[in-house]
Amino acid sequence: MSNPKSQKLKARLPRGFVDRSAEEIRASEHMLAKIKGVYELYGFEPIETPAFEYTDCLGKFLPDTDRPNAGVFSVQDDDEQWMSLRYDLTAPLARHVAEHINEIQLPFRSYRAGWVFRNEKPGPGRFRQFMQFDADSVGAPGVGADAEMCMMFADTLDALGLKGKYVVRVNNRKVLDGVLEAIGLGADADTEKRLTVLRAMDKFDKFGSPGVRLLLAEGRKDESGDFTKGAGLPQAAIDAIIEILESGSLEALLADGETLAFKTPGLAALPMNAALSDGFTELKIISELVRGAGYGADRIRIDPSVVRGLEYYTGPVYEAELTFPVTNEKGEVVQFGSVGGGGRYDGLVKRFTGRDVPATGFSIGVSRLMSALKNLGKLDVAEVLEPVLVTVMDGDVAALARYQAMTQQLRAAGIRAEMYQGNWKKFGNQLKYADKRGCPLAIIQGSEERASGEIQIKDLIEGKRLSGEITDNVTWRESRPAQETVRETDLVETVRKMLAAQAEDRSRVARTDA
Amino acid sequence: MSNPKSQKLKARLPRGFVDRSAEEIRASEHMLAKIKGVYELYGFEPIETPAFEYTDCLGKFLPDTDRPNAGVFSVQDDDEQWMSLRYDLTAPLARHVAEHINEIQLPFRSYRAGWVFRNEKPGPGRFRQFMQFDADSVGAPGVGADAEMCMMFADTLDALGLKGKYVVRVNNRKVLDGVLEAIGLGADADTEKRLTVLRAMDKFDKFGSPGVRLLLAEGRKDESGDFTKGAGLPQAAIDAIIEILESGSLEALLADGETLAFKTPGLAALPMNAALSDGFTELKIISELVRGAGYGADRIRIDPSVVRGLEYYTGPVYEAELTFPVTNEKGEVVQFGSVGGGGRYDGLVKRFTGRDVPATGFSIGVSRLMSALKNLGKLDVAEVLEPVLVTVMDGDVAALARYQAMTQQLRAAGIRAEMYQGNWKKFGNQLKYADKRGCPLAIIQGSEERASGEIQIKDLIEGKRLSGEITDNVTWRESRPAQETVRETDLVETVRKMLAAQAEDRSRVARTDA
Repeated sequence: MSNPKSQKLKARLPRGFVDRSAEEIRASEHMLAKIKGVYELYGFEPIETPAFEYTDCLGKFLPDTDRPNAGVFSVQDDDEQWMSLRYDLTAPLARHVAEHINEIQLPFRSYRAGWVFRNEKPGPGRFRQFMQFDADSVGAPGVGADAEMCMMFADTLDALGLKGKYVVRVNNRKVLDGVLEAIGLGADADTEKRLTVLRAMDKFDKFGSPGVRLLLAEGRKDESGDFTKGAGLPQAAIDAIIEILESGSLEALLADGETLAFKTPGLAALPMNAALSDGFTELKIISELVRGAGYGADRIRIDPSVVRGLEYYTGPVYEAELTFPVTNEKGEVVQFGSVGGGGRYDGLVKRFTGRDVPATGFSIGVSRLMSALKNLGKLDVAEVLEPVLVTVMDGDVAALARYQAMTQQLRAAGIRAEMYQGNWKKFGNQLKYADKRGCPLAIIQGSEERASGEIQIKDLIEGKRLSGEITDNVTWRESRPAQETVRETDLVETVRKMLAAQAEDRSRVARTDA
Repeated sequence: MSNPKSQKLKARLPRGFVDRSAEEIRASEHMLAKIKGVYELYGFEPIETPAFEYTDCLGKFLPDTDRPNAGVFSVQDDDEQWMSLRYDLTAPLARHVAEHINEIQLPFRSYRAGWVFRNEKPGPGRFRQFMQFDADSVGAPGVGADAEMCMMFADTLDALGLKGKYVVRVNNRKVLDGVLEAIGLGADADTEKRLTVLRAMDKFDKFGSPGVRLLLAEGRKDESGDFTKGAGLPQAAIDAIIEILESGSLEALLADGETLAFKTPGLAALPMNAALSDGFTELKIISELVRGAGYGADRIRIDPSVVRGLEYYTGPVYEAELTFPVTNEKGEVVQFGSVGGGGRYDGLVKRFTGRDVPATGFSIGVSRLMSALKNLGKLDVAEVLEPVLVTVMDGDVAALARYQAMTQQLRAAGIRAEMYQGNWKKFGNQLKYADKRGCPLAIIQGSEERASGEIQIKDLIEGKRLSGEITDNVTWRESRPAQETVRETDLVETVRKMLAAQAEDRSRVARTDA
C-alpha cells in the first residue's frame, strides 16, 4: 500500500457475523465428521450447491417474512436478474435435482454441510450466517423415508454423545391441514389465515397455551408493547388447537388407534376429514416402522404439536429437541430445545419440473448443536500438540539459515515446529510467546553453542515456572533451567525422546485423574 | 406448499456458480486435509472469519477494478452501512487481527480455507465463488517469514504429489517500486501510472514481451478490437522493464551479487536507489535461507518478473507455478501456470491500528489446484464402499418394518446400508438403482422367505451381468442368480463374509494391475 490512510478505520464486523477460533473450528470439524459418519452409514452421498441462487429459484418459504425479499440477502446481477444468498440448503437442493432430473438416479440420497444466510435482526445466539448440515431423500414417496430420517437423526445425536438427552418429535402437516379444514379454514382464500394459525401454534414453546390462545383469538401484546394481530378464530377452534398442542403424543390424542376417534372434547367435536385421517395414518405407519427397528418413544415420539416454520412442508415434519435444562440469557432454567428438524416437501422440485418428485429431509443447526454439546461438556476437542519453538539468538543471515534448517529437519521428521518470526532481539518475548502458545520445547543455539556444534533443548513444560524470571539473553545464559545440551546432529532424536517423556507424564496424570 | 404455481420455473444457476459432485467434494476434502497437515506441521493454527465484512474494512485492493465496489458483491445494511462478501481471505484476517490486537499473541500464525466471491465476468475456469486456502504470519517483520512461506508452499505441493512439477517464484515489490522510481514514476502523483505499469507487467505470461511493450507504450488492441490505453513510458524505461521480465532469475539480472550491479544494458543505465537495493538485498537473504534449508532453485527461484495483482503488497511477493504442459480451451499447449501466491502486506493491519503490524502470507486457489491434480491423475479419491441395498418385495407395514429392522441391524454393525425408498413395486427399478449406485450386495426377502425366516443375499458384483434381464418380481424369483439363502439371524455375518470376499477380489485385481 503506497498511500496508508492517515485517518484510522475501525476494525469491526457487521452485527450477526462472528469469527471462529481455533478451538471452535477444531470442535466443529470433529462434530461434522461424526455427523457425516452416520449419514454415510445410512448410504447418503455428499453434494453441494453454491452460496448464490436466483431469487425466484429459492422461493419465499421463510417464516415470518411477509414482505418480498425480507429475510434474505439479495443483489441484482448485470442482466438485472435478482440473486440471493441461500437461506437454507433445501431450496437449492430442489433446484439442483430439478436441473439434473434426467441424469440423477432416484431416489437420490444426499447430504451437505454449508453456511446459510438470513437477513434478520440478530440477537443472542441468533446469527445472520450459520451452518446447517442437511440430509435428504429425493424421489422417495413413502413415509418409510420419513421414518428413516427420524432414525438417522436419533442415531446422529447418539453418535454425538447425547444418548438419553433428546427426543425426535414427529407430526404431519396433513394433520394440521385437516384441523384447519375442520375449523373452516380449508379454502384457498384462507391461505393467509392458515399461516397465521400455524405461526401462532409454532409459538407454543415460547408463550405456552395462554399466549397461543391470544394469538389464535384477537391478538397478543408483548412485553415491549408490540401488538401481534391474532387469527380471530372462534372459541371451539381455539380449544381444538390447544388440545393438539397440549397432547404431547399421538396416543394421548386418539381414543382408538384403529378408527382414529378423538378422545379430547374439543377435537371430538370436529368433523373428521381426509387430510386428518391420512395424516394420522401416516403417523401410525412411521410409529410402527421406528418401533419395529427398536426406537422407543423416548427417542422418537409422535407428537401432533410439532409445527416447523418453513412453508414448503407437505407431509410428515420432525424436530429434534434436547431435553436437558439450561439457563437462558434471562437467567431462567429452560429446556435446551430444538437443534434442527425437517419434513416432507413434495412440491419443491415440482415447482421446476411440473412432475411429482416427492422428497423428505432434515437440517441440523450446527452452531446450536455445538453450543449444546459445550454446555454438556461433550464437545470433543482432539488434543493438539503445539509446535516446538526454534528460538533466534542471533539475526545474521548465516545464523538464521541454521535455525531455519533445524526447523525444517524437525518438520521433515513429522514434528510440529516453528522458528520464531517476531522481533528476535528480546529473548524474553520469545519465551513469552512459547508460553502463551503452549510450546512443549524450545531449541536454543547461541554463538558459543554454534561454534561447538551443540544445541540446547529446553523443556518448557518442566521449566515453565522459570519463564517469568528471564527477560534477556544474558539472564537466560546464566540461569539455564531444565534443559539438555546435545550435539546438533542429535536434534531430532532428542526432541522425540523429550516429547515422548512429556506424553508419558500427561497420560500418567490422566490415569490418576480417572 | 398449498399453492403450487401453474407456470414452471426454470431450474438454473447464475453464471459463474457451480454445484459440486460427491467425487469433487471427496477429492477436495482429501486435498484440504493434506494442505492442512503441512500448515499444522509448520505450527499454524486455524482461524476463520465470516463471508461478510464492512466494505470499508475490506478496502479496494482488487486488480483491474478502478470503479468503486466493482469486483465485489455488496449490500446495504439496515443502518445504511455497506457490507461486502469477502473477495479474499487476507483483508478479513487483517480486520480480525486489528480488532483483537490486544489479545492476540504476535507473531500470529494462522490458516483458513474458505469461499471467496468476485463479482466479475465469469469465463472458462473462472468462477464468481471459489475456494482459497491461506496461511499467514502476522507480526513477523523479517524476510525469514517470507522465506518460510515459500518453503511451506513448496512442501504443500510436494505433499499433494506435485514433486518436480512446480516452482515457487519469488520477487519483491520494492524491486518493482525501485525500478518505477528509477524511470521517474516515484512521485505520489504517479500512483495511477505505476498501477498501469504493474498491470502491464502482470500480463507478461499472457501477452509476452511484444504485448507488454505495447501496454507500456501507447497501448494495445486485443483480438476483439478492444483498446487498452498504455502507460506512455519512454523507450529506455520500457527496455529496462522488459529486461526484468525476461530475466527469469536474480542471477541472470545481476552482474555481481555483492554490489548489486546490473548486467543487462537497459537496467545498467538506470540510477540505483534505496528501494531497488533493499529489494535485492531482501531477495538475497530469502535465497540464502531457502538454500540453507535445502530448497534448490528448481523448487524456489528468485525471479524479478513476478508481479501479483493485488495492491496491498509491500515487500516480497511469491507465486507457485505448475510447470507441466496442458492443453487450454483453445487447443493450445501451455504451462499450467499459477495455483496461488502471496506476499508481504505490512500496511493492511496498520490501516486500522495506526501501528506497524508487518505480515506475510499466501493463498492457494483450491479449485485450480484440484483441476491441476485431476489433469495429472494425482487426485486421490478415497475408495468409498457403496451401501448394501435392502430391497422391498412387499409394501405392507409389517414387511416394511422388517426390512427397516434388517437395515438398522447392518448399520448397527457398521455396515453401510440402505433400504430402497423409491416406488417398490417395480423390482427392476430397485436393481437398476443398485447397479447405478454400485451397491455391492442386495438383501431380498419375499413373503415365502419371510414365512421360513430366511433371506437371500445377492452378490451384485458377481451377478451384475444379469441385472439387465430382470424386470419384475416374478422373473427375479425364477432366475435367482449368484446369491446365498441364509437364516435371517445370519444376515450380518453373511454380509460381512461376502463383502470381505469382494474386497479380497479387488485387492487381487489391484495386485495384478500393479
